[in-house]
Amino acid sequence: MTQFDYDLFVIGGGSGGVRSARLAAAMGKKVAIAEEYRFGGTCVIRGCVPKKLFVYASQFHEHFEDAAGFGWTVGESRFNWHALVAAKDKEIDRLEGLYRKGLEGAGAEILQTRAELTGPHSVRLVSSGREVTAERIIIAVGGAPNPHASLSGHDLCISSNEAFHLENLPRSILIAGGGYIAVEFANIFHGLGVETTLIYRGAEILSRFDQDMRRGLHEAMEAKGIRILCHDHIQKVEKSPAGNLQVETMNNGVLVVEQVMLALGRDPNTTGLGLEAAGVEINERGAVIVDRYSRTNVPSIFALGDVTDRVQLTPVAIHEAMCFIETEYKNNPTSPDHELIATAVFSQPEIGTVGMSEEQAAKKFEEIEVYRAQFRPMKATLSGRAEKMIMKLIVNAADRKVVGAHILGHDAGEMAQLLGITLKAGCTKDEFDRTMAVHPTAAEELVTMYNPTYRVRNGERV
Amino acid sequence: MTQFDYDLFVIGGGSGGVRSARLAAAMGKKVAIAEEYRFGGTCVIRGCVPKKLFVYASQFHEHFEDAAGFGWTVGESRFNWHALVAAKDKEIDRLEGLYRKGLEGAGAEILQTRAELTGPHSVRLVSSGREVTAERIIIAVGGAPNPHASLSGHDLCISSNEAFHLENLPRSILIAGGGYIAVEFANIFHGLGVETTLIYRGAEILSRFDQDMRRGLHEAMEAKGIRILCHDHIQKVEKSPAGNLQVETMNNGVLVVEQVMLALGRDPNTTGLGLEAAGVEINERGAVIVDRYSRTNVPSIFALGDVTDRVQLTPVAIHEAMCFIETEYKNNPTSPDHELIATAVFSQPEIGTVGMSEEQAAKKFEEIEVYRAQFRPMKATLSGRAEKMIMKLIVNAADRKVVGAHILGHDAGEMAQLLGITLKAGCTKDEFDRTMAVHPTAAEELVTMYNPTYRVRNGERV
Repeated sequence: MTQFDYDLFVIGGGSGGVRSARLAAAMGKKVAIAEEYRFGGTCVIRGCVPKKLFVYASQFHEHFEDAAGFGWTVGESRFNWHALVAAKDKEIDRLEGLYRKGLEGAGAEILQTRAELTGPHSVRLVSSGREVTAERIIIAVGGAPNPHASLSGHDLCISSNEAFHLENLPRSILIAGGGYIAVEFANIFHGLGVETTLIYRGAEILSRFDQDMRRGLHEAMEAKGIRILCHDHIQKVEKSPAGNLQVETMNNGVLVVEQVMLALGRDPNTTGLGLEAAGVEINERGAVIVDRYSRTNVPSIFALGDVTDRVQLTPVAIHEAMCFIETEYKNNPTSPDHELIATAVFSQPEIGTVGMSEEQAAKKFEEIEVYRAQFRPMKATLSGRAEKMIMKLIVNAADRKVVGAHILGHDAGEMAQLLGITLKAGCTKDEFDRTMAVHPTAAEELVTMYNPTYRVRNGERV
Repeated sequence: MTQFDYDLFVIGGGSGGVRSARLAAAMGKKVAIAEEYRFGGTCVIRGCVPKKLFVYASQFHEHFEDAAGFGWTVGESRFNWHALVAAKDKEIDRLEGLYRKGLEGAGAEILQTRAELTGPHSVRLVSSGREVTAERIIIAVGGAPNPHASLSGHDLCISSNEAFHLENLPRSILIAGGGYIAVEFANIFHGLGVETTLIYRGAEILSRFDQDMRRGLHEAMEAKGIRILCHDHIQKVEKSPAGNLQVETMNNGVLVVEQVMLALGRDPNTTGLGLEAAGVEINERGAVIVDRYSRTNVPSIFALGDVTDRVQLTPVAIHEAMCFIETEYKNNPTSPDHELIATAVFSQPEIGTVGMSEEQAAKKFEEIEVYRAQFRPMKATLSGRAEKMIMKLIVNAADRKVVGAHILGHDAGEMAQLLGITLKAGCTKDEFDRTMAVHPTAAEELVTMYNPTYRVRNGERV
């Protein structure tokens, strides 16, 4: 018999929280999960899912254009932003329902309230003021866009949160940031007909990605008509008399746009969570500090997902939740594995990537082989669209292992998922070479690059 | 000093012939390549390439329809068959030019003529009647659709060859066959607005594919409005007074259609090739018999690609050509590897597959695990399109190796290419499981099916 109200109390109904609550409840544990807003978390409510639906929406105008090269004449098309938002909201309602149903089906208790820690084993339910106890507590409250409060006029700007519910589609938008969220939204808005500018402090968008991907995407976006201002940032945002926003930049003068979106990083949602009361330590970025089993410095309290600021991705939070279950409830201590995570940027063209960039690999290994193909996708030969695909494999010359794979172009995300298996399994370039091509596909390039494009030895291209 | 006119004489300018001629010439060999029609072979001229361009063309009407769910209103669209054929022909001209340029650049002599064997080292150029000699000869003449000459009225029917150049798009078509060519063209014609019926003698389309793929595609095609008549075949084709074709079937009475296409297998192009004069043996299907190094019974004569009826695929012919070069000119005896060839059917939905079907694996292994997911792709949630994706992994329980992977749905061909690497490398299901998901993608299902859907032990589902 336990002296606690619950075996497990989960704070936060996102990907990590829901998975851990559902699995524990399905094992017969007494579980409660508290969520102050909607179930599904960033991923379902204001991240991956609605983002990808918007990406699909923003691609249709290219389909209409491409059709001409294949013999089609297409009548005039019009886009209705409100219809898209409504359709997206309906789908999110459906998904949220599935999350709730999954929890209920497993026997978890759903508490529609904000919850705050009051001690190592106790939580206060804010809606009722009631305090409950639990043997174990999981903090899975996620993160939120950094509001950039030091920027004068930041309150006139939106973040990705608001982008999903804008009352009207703006005629023009300035997006600040060079990360994947900024880049994805720039492509979405442009695709929906918005005059789009991206402003980024750094030398090139998507830092930490492979240089060819960064340059390739930059060029493709500019070719489509997205203005990209690197080496620059916003200094001030003001409302103009006409109702637009006047944006003072460091290096590009004053820009006048209808909307400004800030995509300058995300912060863990730890403010006011009662971490001090419970004695849970956070780092300088506000993220909950955990050990390799997602345990905080307080032995009964764990943290999963974005709030820990390890790798901010849905599948990682889910994986951490499953490792928690193995470790705490199945007597099988399992650390989350954060190595070789494949990811996608749903820009247009897409980026899919896993493993090391050329730059990282060149630093780590004495000699690497770089295989690089750049080509026009078959569909573009008839559509006439000026677009190129780039595929790149990085191989450690010493053992022939493929240590990085990078793709720019259609379906890059799907390809990265499966390349992820090959890198995780430690496949060699010879195993790629032994694989028969599937013709005609784009991916066949990845198994037919028989000779290195170049090598990098001791950091020097040879 | 050689006593021959050429080191290598290649008969046939398709994928296998061109690759072997180009590589040998680039090594400094004296090479001639004879082609009676156009360079590029089945793949470029009347196969993979124009087929896939037609597939793209036939998908646009779905894009137009799908757009509505994402907030788009699209004006009326019209399709112009002649524009598509002209655009396709232009692209094929370009590709043929690249093939010629590659050969010329490598220093191969291009002979625009039919060539027939006259002896172990000699060939007659039909256009001039001139006879030339070569140390080695490659037969790479490919195959052609079986005309089904025993069928009464077969001369009123077209094959895939003619389908690429029809004077007009028919209002209705009956396609006979259950293989990938029949299935792909049924989807192409349907997508371009043609009333399409498929008739196939067997119990289910695409024999030898995994049962779930066969049934899943069959259902998807019927749901779109393609009529499929299995267990049936054509007995007679006649011209009707009104100019249509009256087709007598075994089990479905008389069908009246504007066009009939026969896709009932392909035969090696060996007739009249002078094989008897040279003493080259063929099998009962007319295919040139070769050993594991693609050598015929005549030591100086080799055969590559479809004419050998090993595996009729472009990349296989190319691979056989590269193995020939290694073996004969680089002192590195290399047999073509025909194991674990990934392939795609560019039906709509697509099929991508590598390795064993469930049925094959169940016969071969004592126990297999079957992992099967069926789901609605994310795009379909808003488009409202009734479509499902099926993904299936077959695992040998004894060693956990993934021995088959099968996908029905968008991008299945691209996925099959990369799954091909994992099967070729002998990856285990545990390596799939250790791979982090890329969200949201379709392929993430392939790394998140943690528990078998069912097992088959000694042929029995358990």
